[in-house]
Amino acid sequence: MKTSIATVSISGELPEKLAAIAKAGFDGVEIFENDFLAFDGSPADVGRMVRDHGLEITLFQPFRDFEGMPEPHRTRTFDRAERKFDIMQQLGTDLVLICSNVSPVSLGGIDRAAADFHELGERAAKRGLRVGYEALAWGRHIFDHRDAWEIVRRADHANIGLILDSFHTLSRKIDINSIRSIPKEKIFIVQLADAPLIDMDLLYWSRHFRNMPGEGDLPVVAFTSAIAETGYDGYFSLEIFNDQFRGGSAKAIAADGHRSLITLGDRVRRGPNATGLTVAAMPDRAPVKGVGFVEFSVDETDAAELVAILSTLGFHKTAQHRTKQVSVYQQGEIRLLINTERAGFANASYAVHGPSAYATALVVEDAAESMARATALGAESFSQPVGSGEVDIPAIRGVGGGVIYLLDKKSDLGRIWDIDFLTVQDDEKSPSAHLRTIDHIAQTVAYEEMLTWLLFYTAIFQTQKTPMVDIIDPAGVVRSQVIENAAGTLRITLNGAENRRTLAGHFIAETFGSGIQHLAFSTDDIFATAAALKQNGFRPLHISPNYYDDVEARFGLDPELSERLKAENILYDRDEYGEFFQLYSGTYGEGFFFEIVERRGYRGYGAANAIFRIAALKKQIRPDGMPALAKTRSRSQ
Amino acid sequence: MKTSIATVSISGELPEKLAAIAKAGFDGVEIFENDFLAFDGSPADVGRMVRDHGLEITLFQPFRDFEGMPEPHRTRTFDRAERKFDIMQQLGTDLVLICSNVSPVSLGGIDRAAADFHELGERAAKRGLRVGYEALAWGRHIFDHRDAWEIVRRADHANIGLILDSFHTLSRKIDINSIRSIPKEKIFIVQLADAPLIDMDLLYWSRHFRNMPGEGDLPVVAFTSAIAETGYDGYFSLEIFNDQFRGGSAKAIAADGHRSLITLGDRVRRGPNATGLTVAAMPDRAPVKGVGFVEFSVDETDAAELVAILSTLGFHKTAQHRTKQVSVYQQGEIRLLINTERAGFANASYAVHGPSAYATALVVEDAAESMARATALGAESFSQPVGSGEVDIPAIRGVGGGVIYLLDKKSDLGRIWDIDFLTVQDDEKSPSAHLRTIDHIAQTVAYEEMLTWLLFYTAIFQTQKTPMVDIIDPAGVVRSQVIENAAGTLRITLNGAENRRTLAGHFIAETFGSGIQHLAFSTDDIFATAAALKQNGFRPLHISPNYYDDVEARFGLDPELSERLKAENILYDRDEYGEFFQLYSGTYGEGFFFEIVERRGYRGYGAANAIFRIAALKKQIRPDGMPALAKTRSRSQ
Repeated sequence: MKTSIATVSISGELPEKLAAIAKAGFDGVEIFENDFLAFDGSPADVGRMVRDHGLEITLFQPFRDFEGMPEPHRTRTFDRAERKFDIMQQLGTDLVLICSNVSPVSLGGIDRAAADFHELGERAAKRGLRVGYEALAWGRHIFDHRDAWEIVRRADHANIGLILDSFHTLSRKIDINSIRSIPKEKIFIVQLADAPLIDMDLLYWSRHFRNMPGEGDLPVVAFTSAIAETGYDGYFSLEIFNDQFRGGSAKAIAADGHRSLITLGDRVRRGPNATGLTVAAMPDRAPVKGVGFVEFSVDETDAAELVAILSTLGFHKTAQHRTKQVSVYQQGEIRLLINTERAGFANASYAVHGPSAYATALVVEDAAESMARATALGAESFSQPVGSGEVDIPAIRGVGGGVIYLLDKKSDLGRIWDIDFLTVQDDEKSPSAHLRTIDHIAQTVAYEEMLTWLLFYTAIFQTQKTPMVDIIDPAGVVRSQVIENAAGTLRITLNGAENRRTLAGHFIAETFGSGIQHLAFSTDDIFATAAALKQNGFRPLHISPNYYDDVEARFGLDPELSERLKAENILYDRDEYGEFFQLYSGTYGEGFFFEIVERRGYRGYGAANAIFRIAALKKQIRPDGMPALAKTRSRSQ
Repeated sequence: MKTSIATVSISGELPEKLAAIAKAGFDGVEIFENDFLAFDGSPADVGRMVRDHGLEITLFQPFRDFEGMPEPHRTRTFDRAERKFDIMQQLGTDLVLICSNVSPVSLGGIDRAAADFHELGERAAKRGLRVGYEALAWGRHIFDHRDAWEIVRRADHANIGLILDSFHTLSRKIDINSIRSIPKEKIFIVQLADAPLIDMDLLYWSRHFRNMPGEGDLPVVAFTSAIAETGYDGYFSLEIFNDQFRGGSAKAIAADGHRSLITLGDRVRRGPNATGLTVAAMPDRAPVKGVGFVEFSVDETDAAELVAILSTLGFHKTAQHRTKQVSVYQQGEIRLLINTERAGFANASYAVHGPSAYATALVVEDAAESMARATALGAESFSQPVGSGEVDIPAIRGVGGGVIYLLDKKSDLGRIWDIDFLTVQDDEKSPSAHLRTIDHIAQTVAYEEMLTWLLFYTAIFQTQKTPMVDIIDPAGVVRSQVIENAAGTLRITLNGAENRRTLAGHFIAETFGSGIQHLAFSTDDIFATAAALKQNGFRPLHISPNYYDDVEARFGLDPELSERLKAENILYDRDEYGEFFQLYSGTYGEGFFFEIVERRGYRGYGAANAIFRIAALKKQIRPDGMPALAKTRSRSQ
């Protein structure tokens, strides 16, 4: 699969864009005309710069309002095309994109357009150039690739071909079966873009909301499969108009783009009929069987505070690393590691971010295979020195530069607890709170990183996303995106903050980056858990009584139940599958907190309750931005 | 006109919201239920807090999914309503909003809904409460205020009335004449919102894009006039869902809201038939006859640099303030004041923002009347001590805290030049560059301030806005909004930057706030001006030769013309009215620059050229964020 991206897809001046595109691993680049026009160098300079980066110019675009023009416009349009042909030859590219005419003076008629293209084909042939025709979804007369193809067919010229763009076809819900009958040699290039499904004006949608394949909701895999079935094996090129990408990091967006194409190729390859596509083989996305552990990097003072909280949550120390200052606190299947080493990555992470849950271990079938896939998709591998005889767990870098360890049972890796750790007996025996598993890991990221991590998780692991929802913080909207697997053994929520006054934004600002802001543990009996927590001296987050009056009325709850919920500060929700109970801790550090949930069939994450939970949590963040947990806890004693 | 706003319209916790709403001058407030539920205080506490602010609770809202429910839902829904009635009585409000049912289990039928409302009316009456019914634009069965009104009519109960919302009616383009036949006593409250005209899913549009009346494109004045014609004189209440407002300053958004309502009332009052509305009289919006002067606050070093540039632009010193360090540089009708005072507001502005064009004088028919209108609309008046016998020009605070003086010829104010200034002879005679007027003033503002200043200018002065356009900066999208009058004597462009790496964002970051980033002067002969500038040693902004090849091809220009444009670095554009020529200076200070334009009938601002101009200007901003003008100029010498 030959990969390409249009310069318009990323931010920066032309040289900066090309460097980012080359670094991300693309084979080619579409030169978007405005990027070239704004550059203070000749077309030959640009061509040289592209080739110096090891890239090929896959396309020069766009040429607008060509076909079906009446005179005198027609003559001028052909003259204009000749001028662009001059530039293409100097740039060193043979392909130009003509998008369907939107001019009010243009005339319709398939044959008129075909005749124009035939004549242009003659002119292009003289120079050894090729012209690709693309149906814009909002073209004046031509807005369907089937009509564009008919024009190309009738133009009947070797130098005239079709350009397919997933956005233009899929935004209009055009049947992709119609692609399968197009001869592969007449498809000159394929452009790809995804987009979230929001019903709006096509041009507005296209200009502002496009994103990378896999980041949106369009059936780009099916579209690409249909193309692969024609035998087409040329460039697949990203053409993404997105306000966020235009203002983002060129390097990061280009890397996302390359990852999205490679993932797409892999998915198409795994389809039934994708005979045409050359795609490098890699292991399939791994099903994640659970969260092996979450590791905190803290100093001794933080550790004491954290251990105190974990103790009220019913965790006991069950193991100690043989050579490092790492303790394991356990309850049910949940393992939390507390790392107070003064050296190594955990310590470095602590120095930058302060106390944080910096590492997560995911249990997979075959860790080596998962590593192979992750690195094939450009994930950064992570390793640090381990003691002699200790287990070297494969790992990659994740959100906020944190670590994702890959654990399996196939090899020695599953034996980490036996090899690296010593079992210990906890003297202080606070009762268990019946917590069983990690229900979900909530990561807070800068809003502009959300798509990056969405793509990261869904490309590497067998997971899917659910629709993004808006969470109302008193200081602004926070976007929330779920990534989960069908078994419910991996659930991640990504919360994207646009301003630093929201709870999420505060966390990012104060911890100097994205990361895990809360962990949700599951219980089978929220009330038994609440009782145990109370006995342990845990102080739950106080929820306004007004909330409970509303919940009782809204869901028609038995007043006895709603009284119990209120007494225990338990939030309630319900969906078509069942009931949901949520109990929160106060905040620790710069806004980190714990959640306990009971799912009685419920599949969501209590989004409707978030506004109340956030309002309550924010009361604990003091105006000067310092943690208020100490205060809260001393009050409870 | 009684003014109200829903708590959901602004950011913050409930107490913060109420304080901002009271301070902005509203008479009442709608309590949005979630704001109440998240608040940790009783309904009575909330009611007291509202009244302590001198506000009235105009509405409790929303109550969802009421009418047309089958059993057992129906009974539960009525129970739920009784629970909300309890809260209303404790809050101290008599009106609740029921929005049309969206539940999939709800049943249609006007009579069924009317019967439900009649029964609810009976229950409400027992408590002295009233229920208003509103048709959501996306209601399941009812999505048109005409149908909602028919239900209310058939419910035939004194305690059941209609709630009209401009967004729900206007988003569906429902004929507003249908409002005129509704008896005023059956309209329980009117909600107002505007929105930009973008064709999209109604719910998505409503949830994210609403804005204050006058900030969008909906015919809210006509809608409100139709209501006023019924004789309705109750509350007009803003209900605005807008992501930007939710993340913005509660105080600023509330102030905008109040200004928008007062402006709307004034516009309705000036309509032909608005007999019902009680609106305080104020002078009409003033037509601006021109820009009297623009004043720079600088220190002596900056002044020398600025004078050097102005000299190359063909300006001469023509006057000197009698008592202050203020010089006047003039050309054609353009007056630029250079203020190097070590005291007073200009000096204070310099201390905060560095060298800047901090004040503008607008020429109006009657400055006192314009002041009266501006202050009635909440503009902050500005004054500072003047010398004995000197003219005290009325003024208000504008963008970035800068000053807008109001000059007229009616009173002494027009005589400022005769009274406060002494005419001087400039010794150094660089030839005039034939500059005539200030064509436009370009102000750069933080993106979230754009609507504030749009509303400010259009509410106070006789101006109108043109559609917002996207300007592509290599580092991101910049939104550009024009405010202008029909005569072309006042033209302002507002450029809103979302990130600090754009040219606009850099300007805001480095000058610590919004302000004038460039001034565009007009000429009648761009080539004569270019020749004069060259003679004066002016160095124009260098534009890439690639641009000229494209312009020649795109517009079919005579190659001789395009060669001339290229030689002089003049940008070219054309619209249906005529041609446009633009010539730019390099940057001064933190990104300030000058533009010279010739309009041959053209009405736009060269938006299509902005990408090339920005790319060229950004080359002058050094990576460390320091001004590069000195470097550029020394190179030219």
